Amino acid sequence: MMNSFGHIFRVTTWGESHGPALGATVDGVPPGVKLEPEMLQHWLDRRKPGQNRFTTQRREPDAVKVLSGVYEGETTGTPVQLMIENTDQRSKDYGDIAEKFRPGHADITYWLKYGIRDPRGGGRSSARETAARVAAGGLAREVLKALAPGIEIRGYMTRMGAHGIDRSRFDWDEIERNPFWVPDAEAAKTWEGYLDGLRKAGSSVGAVCEVVVRGAPAGLGAPVYAKLDTDLAAAMMSINAVKGVEIGEGMAAAMLTGEENADEISMGPDGPVYSSNHAGGILGGISTGQDIVVRFAVKPTSSILTPRKTITRSGEPAEIVTKGRHDPCVGIRAVPVGEAMAACVVLDHLLLHRAQVGDGPRGQIG
Amino acid sequence: MMNSFGHIFRVTTWGESHGPALGATVDGVPPGVKLEPEMLQHWLDRRKPGQNRFTTQRREPDAVKVLSGVYEGETTGTPVQLMIENTDQRSKDYGDIAEKFRPGHADITYWLKYGIRDPRGGGRSSARETAARVAAGGLAREVLKALAPGIEIRGYMTRMGAHGIDRSRFDWDEIERNPFWVPDAEAAKTWEGYLDGLRKAGSSVGAVCEVVVRGAPAGLGAPVYAKLDTDLAAAMMSINAVKGVEIGEGMAAAMLTGEENADEISMGPDGPVYSSNHAGGILGGISTGQDIVVRFAVKPTSSILTPRKTITRSGEPAEIVTKGRHDPCVGIRAVPVGEAMAACVVLDHLLLHRAQVGDGPRGQIG
Amino acid sequence: MMNSFGHIFRVTTWGESHGPALGATVDGVPPGVKLEPEMLQHWLDRRKPGQNRFTTQRREPDAVKVLSGVYEGETTGTPVQLMIENTDQRSKDYGDIAEKFRPGHADITYWLKYGIRDPRGGGRSSARETAARVAAGGLAREVLKALAPGIEIRGYMTRMGAHGIDRSRFDWDEIERNPFWVPDAEAAKTWEGYLDGLRKAGSSVGAVCEVVVRGAPAGLGAPVYAKLDTDLAAAMMSINAVKGVEIGEGMAAAMLTGEENADEISMGPDGPVYSSNHAGGILGGISTGQDIVVRFAVKPTSSILTPRKTITRSGEPAEIVTKGRHDPCVGIRAVPVGEAMAACVVLDHLLLHRAQVGDGPRGQIG
Amino acid sequence: MMNSFGHIFRVTTWGESHGPALGATVDGVPPGVKLEPEMLQHWLDRRKPGQNRFTTQRREPDAVKVLSGVYEGETTGTPVQLMIENTDQRSKDYGDIAEKFRPGHADITYWLKYGIRDPRGGGRSSARETAARVAAGGLAREVLKALAPGIEIRGYMTRMGAHGIDRSRFDWDEIERNPFWVPDAEAAKTWEGYLDGLRKAGSSVGAVCEVVVRGAPAGLGAPVYAKLDTDLAAAMMSINAVKGVEIGEGMAAAMLTGEENADEISMGPDGPVYSSNHAGGILGGISTGQDIVVRFAVKPTSSILTPRKTITRSGEPAEIVTKGRHDPCVGIRAVPVGEAMAACVVLDHLLLHRAQVGDGPRGQIG
Repeated sequence: MMNSFGHIFRVTTWGESHGPALGATVDGVPPGVKLEPEMLQHWLDRRKPGQNRFTTQRREPDAVKVLSGVYEGETTGTPVQLMIENTDQRSKDYGDIAEKFRPGHADITYWLKYGIRDPRGGGRSSARETAARVAAGGLAREVLKALAPGIEIRGYMTRMGAHGIDRSRFDWDEIERNPFWVPDAEAAKTWEGYLDGLRKAGSSVGAVCEVVVRGAPAGLGAPVYAKLDTDLAAAMMSINAVKGVEIGEGMAAAMLTGEENADEISMGPDGPVYSSNHAGGILGGISTGQDIVVRFAVKPTSSILTPRKTITRSGEPAEIVTKGRHDPCVGIRAVPVGEAMAACVVLDHLLLHRAQVGDGPRGQIG
Repeated sequence: MMNSFGHIFRVTTWGESHGPALGATVDGVPPGVKLEPEMLQHWLDRRKPGQNRFTTQRREPDAVKVLSGVYEGETTGTPVQLMIENTDQRSKDYGDIAEKFRPGHADITYWLKYGIRDPRGGGRSSARETAARVAAGGLAREVLKALAPGIEIRGYMTRMGAHGIDRSRFDWDEIERNPFWVPDAEAAKTWEGYLDGLRKAGSSVGAVCEVVVRGAPAGLGAPVYAKLDTDLAAAMMSINAVKGVEIGEGMAAAMLTGEENADEISMGPDGPVYSSNHAGGILGGISTGQDIVVRFAVKPTSSILTPRKTITRSGEPAEIVTKGRHDPCVGIRAVPVGEAMAACVVLDHLLLHRAQVGDGPRGQIG
Repeated sequence: MMNSFGHIFRVTTWGESHGPALGATVDGVPPGVKLEPEMLQHWLDRRKPGQNRFTTQRREPDAVKVLSGVYEGETTGTPVQLMIENTDQRSKDYGDIAEKFRPGHADITYWLKYGIRDPRGGGRSSARETAARVAAGGLAREVLKALAPGIEIRGYMTRMGAHGIDRSRFDWDEIERNPFWVPDAEAAKTWEGYLDGLRKAGSSVGAVCEVVVRGAPAGLGAPVYAKLDTDLAAAMMSINAVKGVEIGEGMAAAMLTGEENADEISMGPDGPVYSSNHAGGILGGISTGQDIVVRFAVKPTSSILTPRKTITRSGEPAEIVTKGRHDPCVGIRAVPVGEAMAACVVLDHLLLHRAQVGDGPRGQIG
Repeated sequence: MMNSFGHIFRVTTWGESHGPALGATVDGVPPGVKLEPEMLQHWLDRRKPGQNRFTTQRREPDAVKVLSGVYEGETTGTPVQLMIENTDQRSKDYGDIAEKFRPGHADITYWLKYGIRDPRGGGRSSARETAARVAAGGLAREVLKALAPGIEIRGYMTRMGAHGIDRSRFDWDEIERNPFWVPDAEAAKTWEGYLDGLRKAGSSVGAVCEVVVRGAPAGLGAPVYAKLDTDLAAAMMSINAVKGVEIGEGMAAAMLTGEENADEISMGPDGPVYSSNHAGGILGGISTGQDIVVRFAVKPTSSILTPRKTITRSGEPAEIVTKGRHDPCVGIRAVPVGEAMAACVVLDHLLLHRAQVGDGPRGQIG
């Protein structure tokens, strides 16, 4: 259970950064859904390292193989095994960190917990694990396309370190035009210089990513402990380096009064319409039919060129500088990961709703 | 699975706000732990409504009965059923809301999802459900006391609407001295007047609660999808009205550089010592042994006296004013709930760690 | 997880033989299903002790209370808590067994495992726990009635100790006419004298029970590890005193050749028709649409008047005679329990199928 | 969840008979256990097809690759991916069965359920899936060796069609000397001629397999719904072609009286000693410390040369003869599979016990 998520659409990822391969075993896939490896590759390519100077220079094709669960281009209802072979595993880069614990990394906790750890590239705790999530998320998207067409899942960055975005300039099309998946062209420019500076200084910086699910039906979410927001929070918090998760208004909801926070309801031609979306599309753990908005903070990668104090496995004081190939802002590559997690959660809840209630929302208004 | 949480220490809550009773079925309880109902009652009394003018005036003794799993004052390893009978169920207060959907409440989503809802006091979506969590949390605390003595779990508020706390005045003892569980005596005074104003105006306001787990061993947390922070995020987000969850630095981590965020490590007399705790006691999903710090934002209760626009079940426009007995700041009573969830999660991970790895951390330093 | 079964329709039972109450917490109940306590009471009354001289003379009304999950006579989709209060708990009968382990009972294993046990009536290991299953099974039947009308689930005995039935005399109507739920009137007569003899001698005897599910659609069952037969086997083996489970031909399949065992297929007016049902209605873990046939053996109750050798808690040799109120053939009361488990499993798989595949079988023939 | 088993030691198998590969994703593996692929290969070789004239002539090396979860020859606590590539996939053999449903096979139920099926070699319903189980079972054995040395798990056949064994000739050493894993040398001879006859006639026959777990500690098993026998029953029933499962006395318990069935208890030098083992080492779902005895019946393979009546996908009547490479008695190769399942279940319960209760039985006698 430790490496699985989802109730019905259940994804188990496996593999280490520098092992022969990693992947996702996906159970609960509905049958009869068209699936070709290229459909998944499309999403993997968005997360793939080495695409521009702002992401790690590790060269991985991240080519996904579909080993099971598909027959003549359609899912069969049996588990889908998605495997990505590791090819560029320069373990020599990581010699030093076998003995020293990198501050802010999982080195020390894996060691304390298990008494053994694969130090090569962080082993299982490497963000490379998220490649498997993106593959599974691509599969979830194809299933959603078949079962609930019209759902759109899009992620972007809203903050990089000191710099946020200006929501009045929000432009969906801009997202694909810059290396930061940022929907604000001005911000993209500012961030470019800012991140170049950090990168050259061997530093790193945190980020905020936001994922919006548009077109999901009302009624998704299984209170009380498999609420849609609960599962989204878990999904996002499970991503490497994430330290905070928000739904809709998020932490800022604490500062509002009841009057300010209420999303008033009126009747539109196709059902209820809301005056605002402080709730982020979820009330009582169940989707309202509005945009589902989830946001998460990614801490700066702990691999930096400035020497940091640490200790060795034998408890001796030491200094460490991480010279490997790293992302100055891991938040960038967290965007497709957040999208993938959202796709998996939404699909899972669609199936769970179908199990308990049947197809579509059961209550009618009007 | 929808109303259960935990992997080994598994809590399933049941019951509605105005049904005959509500409770928690707790499976996976270790045997031989001393348990008397009063031990649980202590915690329930902290969450109990009607204790001061800042919480709902519903009068519920919230007396917990232990119906199973205990023999001669000790747990037997079989499921513990904790039941709380509802006594003050003035359903007449809620007549209006059977037909109209309260904005910001789960009324409309429960209706859309299930096609039926118990409107009395919000039914299952009422915060009254959290009484069962607090009972289960009390049980978790007793088990922790037996298995890992020295763990302390304490919650408090750090923000009420416009007003935060001043961490330089942080005082653990102050928490029990004011009605807000706030560790800052000055803040307590300010908040009192502030909330009185909101209460009299029939308004409400949001809050931020923080829970600290002190003394938990290193090594708790099961990567990749049952990370300690993942499960804490899910646990807190599942609490009514919570819209955001943070670990350690939280959303603010986005604004830091790698240099600022690094918690440097040195060797102390009892093991590793950290220069700071930006990580909130968790690295790679596993506890470091530092304080585990989790924070969550509670939105303002949506039940306010200002009329809000909504629709009826038949889709007609309507106005709604919620006249029932409500908390002007539900965040206050969320504090013991957050503590209870933290206790359950920490215990659950202690058991899960014991399953896979055995007693205590397995790796040694020095 | 230890006291729960089912994937979607998830039943957690709790309670001890001589505690204040026992019950079932049922999650995953579809909304909008009519439910009155009497519907459940009907099934409990069939299992209730003391109905004739062949079952324990403990006097329990086994009155079930529905504490949650139902509003105005309909399920709401939230957990249904079913509670049965214990009333006739003559603990004095059980004084002796607190110190001595009854051979064939769970006394010794509960002690070894947990280091504590509730000796009153066997505590959690008492067959009284099955009352909660029967209540949950009654609920499952009502849901099935709503979702898949036409499914009939009927149990009966096919063997009592030395005496089997003659299948050529099989008569469904006979089942309700005798105290043994046996579909063979001749057998009923023979068994009556036989069991009277055993009862008077303070002895006991084993039994075979069979449950048939008629009218279940093809397509239920989730290979590979949640096969319909896998889950039926687990469900039946979890019943107290059960030592064997068979599907269709069962253990006797070992003696057949491929030619004998083949259920040939032809096309009938409403779909495939089979020449026989050696498979017991399940192929590859999935229902064929034929009768689902599951059979289980119940060992003789270990509580007998003949003294048996045993040891005390301190390891001293001892003799034990169980004088309490017991069933000379627990198989009789296992029949409604087996039916209840079958109802839960079939419903659970109906919901699970609905989750992954949708309503009804997806493949067409012809 | 559909393709996973186990609570803590959780095995998810994936893959089809004629896909590129199949395997097992194993989560919950304790860290620090020595693991080399050869340790697993040993067990796979026992199940491997084509070893003698009594098993299918498909030539598969069944070479297992360990893709994750192991570092420098030791498990790390992260998921272990075990992959077996398919090499001898003569799909041409199976052309006919894409259109016709083989009686007794899962062809028709997979089709009805999913509306799509991989007909090549039975796809997911092929007994080839059990290779992944055997690999996982080999891993479980290594973990058991590390955590609870002294546990021995051995399987054998006790019946082939018309012919049983004579328990008075039972010889553990004989098991490895004949192609049937039968512990009775006389039986081995008889069976050889018997099966040669059936094989030449293109027929097939059923079998009974028995697995004994020796040396398991008392206290394993989590009542009420994760009893050790419940999980063993599920594990064995999930194996292809299994139609019945027995613990200890099994179905025959129905014919015993309480006096006959009682396993009397006395005190031996190392703890309780039992006069017999009708219970098969399990009381109340918990191990007693005696041999755990589980038995299962395997139906004759449905692939025979005698033409059988069936229908095509379009509902037309047809005859089918299965000419592929098949086992005349699949029970033979079910022996190592049953052992593997037993190993997984016992380990899983050891870990589950450790979670709830701690290391070793908690209660003392004497």
